[in-house]
Amino acid sequence: MIHFPGMPAPLGRVVEMLSTLPGVGPKTALRLGLNLLSRPAGETAALAASLKSLHELVGFCEVCGCFAEQGFCQYCDDPKREARTVCLVEQPVDVLMMERSHSYRGHYHVLHGRLSPVDGVGPEQLNLAALDARVKAGLKELILATSATVDGEATAHYFARRYRDAGLVISRIARGVPEGGELEYLDEHTLSRALDQRISWDSASL
Amino acid sequence: MIHFPGMPAPLGRVVEMLSTLPGVGPKTALRLGLNLLSRPAGETAALAASLKSLHELVGFCEVCGCFAEQGFCQYCDDPKREARTVCLVEQPVDVLMMERSHSYRGHYHVLHGRLSPVDGVGPEQLNLAALDARVKAGLKELILATSATVDGEATAHYFARRYRDAGLVISRIARGVPEGGELEYLDEHTLSRALDQRISWDSASL
Repeated sequence: MIHFPGMPAPLGRVVEMLSTLPGVGPKTALRLGLNLLSRPAGETAALAASLKSLHELVGFCEVCGCFAEQGFCQYCDDPKREARTVCLVEQPVDVLMMERSHSYRGHYHVLHGRLSPVDGVGPEQLNLAALDARVKAGLKELILATSATVDGEATAHYFARRYRDAGLVISRIARGVPEGGELEYLDEHTLSRALDQRISWDSASL
Repeated sequence: MIHFPGMPAPLGRVVEMLSTLPGVGPKTALRLGLNLLSRPAGETAALAASLKSLHELVGFCEVCGCFAEQGFCQYCDDPKREARTVCLVEQPVDVLMMERSHSYRGHYHVLHGRLSPVDGVGPEQLNLAALDARVKAGLKELILATSATVDGEATAHYFARRYRDAGLVISRIARGVPEGGELEYLDEHTLSRALDQRISWDSASL
């Protein structure tokens, strides 16, 4: 925390709290605090009110763990979605990213974390029992959409093994060169994976 | 605003308000909003409470326009400070910067802006009458510490002319190479000014 002699304590408190946000250092926090003080009181009060009610208004779906404003999320509640296909993700925000791709019409299951031996996160810390119940009730496909990190990959493997004999199709989202990716700037692991998992182009379709 | 289908409306409102902060784009705002939602409700509520009371608790000094938690700021209230020397700055935050330099023991006067014909800011939009009164009551020195921009320089000139015949010493903070500045990375205007206003080094003091 940069110390400013003479900074009013209430402003100092706001700046200190803002500086705990991700990517916000002491200088940025000061800039944000001054901005919030310099704008009309009503605007800052509106932000305060929205923050105050954020946790009350936004909870998690009882079935799948997605963001939900009522007991069930809009995906579990939507009869047009394929209920027997479940996409497994780590965080609620991952669902927003999946939805933005407009490529998926099934249900979700949010783990609220991923296996991480280093951080002491085991299966029991994840949203596991609810998934066991859904698998037992009968699923057609489980799409493992955990992140492409070491822990995300380990988590995907864990669930693939766990439901190996449950009689459902298990798949993992593809890894490779991201859209717009130039080989020049790609790391070697991504390129190696993209080569390993290359897709045959059928001559008939060319 | 990046549109996320399925984002809960209360979270969307927070993200939208956060994205109006300086230097915070839609992606950063989403990241901040998700962080505020994922941390304990009490922490977010504490930030909300601090923001709510910010404008109520932090006002401006009736005399000089600095930040003040009561009617008068700590500088005007401090009998050890030289009351007849006034440093003229644009914004309350400039006072914090001046104080951090530990180089000034006089009083301040905050204009709450600077002359800007382009933005339609004339003298009457600034904290002017109060300064007139202070000059009339008898000042010894007025230090013009407005910014080293075109508008800041014009503002300094305006006040230098305004109080030309008021019988007080008027000075302008020095401009030149900033501490740690390497000539290689300096703009030509700064270097030109630093050359023009070079300081003679008395051989006796070397």
